[in-house]
Amino acid sequence: MAKVHRLISVVLRLAAAAAAAAAAIIMVTSHEATSLFGLELEAKYSHIPSFIFFVVAYAVACAYSLLVIFVPPGSAASRLVVMTDVLMGMVLTGAVAATGAIAEVGRNGNSHAGWLPICEQVHDYCNHVMGAFIAGFVALILYFLIIMYSLHVVADPMCPCH
Amino acid sequence: MAKVHRLISVVLRLAAAAAAAAAAIIMVTSHEATSLFGLELEAKYSHIPSFIFFVVAYAVACAYSLLVIFVPPGSAASRLVVMTDVLMGMVLTGAVAATGAIAEVGRNGNSHAGWLPICEQVHDYCNHVMGAFIAGFVALILYFLIIMYSLHVVADPMCPCH
Repeated sequence: MAKVHRLISVVLRLAAAAAAAAAAIIMVTSHEATSLFGLELEAKYSHIPSFIFFVVAYAVACAYSLLVIFVPPGSAASRLVVMTDVLMGMVLTGAVAATGAIAEVGRNGNSHAGWLPICEQVHDYCNHVMGAFIAGFVALILYFLIIMYSLHVVADPMCPCH
Repeated sequence: MAKVHRLISVVLRLAAAAAAAAAAIIMVTSHEATSLFGLELEAKYSHIPSFIFFVVAYAVACAYSLLVIFVPPGSAASRLVVMTDVLMGMVLTGAVAATGAIAEVGRNGNSHAGWLPICEQVHDYCNHVMGAFIAGFVALILYFLIIMYSLHVVADPMCPCH
């Protein structure tokens, strides 16, 4: 049973690391130069603080997921891993939410605040950011599954302690 | 020992419920009407989707925190509560991050996207949103402590099962 737990955990972590790497790479490579009324406009991820946070969070999540695979199961460190998993899941949720909030303004604008939508001018850039958002969301769901699976194993109803 | 665990858990949940209620109420009451170049401007939370999400998330978190206090410790439902706590913590992180991302644009604008800062025009509104953000952040930290404490109790190193 322990071997099955271990296998499921490793597969989930590898998938999460791959999705996190994809999210960070797609966001970093989002770039578009266009001209509007003769003005050169350049759109890249580093112009928006939330997108920088997204890249850093997913790069850290990717490295963390790969490192945690080497933590021996049943060790004192493996109990700490459940807690760091929850922290990582929360950081990724924050990154996805902040990116989603800004991407929504980029797509729809906000007439009350006078913020115009920019996606019509930089269409490819917006699609790239949307791709990163989707990859990030997949990584987040995988993280959620990792956490739920760890909690299910740790909070074993058959255990006489609980 | 079980009584101490219970007391700590109830106190943390009551504090989290109070902070969540404060965050939702401060955000809902954020409202300012001003005039700019003869134009009537109105700023309220419902103009921004992220702020609506914030209010809904914190209202749900407040009700949830109060309800969970009545779940008997050691029951099958109490094991489920650790999982729903993690889910709630992630939803609140998302609400805080989305609100923070939009509030940052409101305060600093984004010259690359052509979004102007609005906080100089609607100063009180911005302060109100910042107040809601701080209360939301406090509630989030309390939620994080609730989750870490539950995990600490569940993943007891003295338990022979782990």
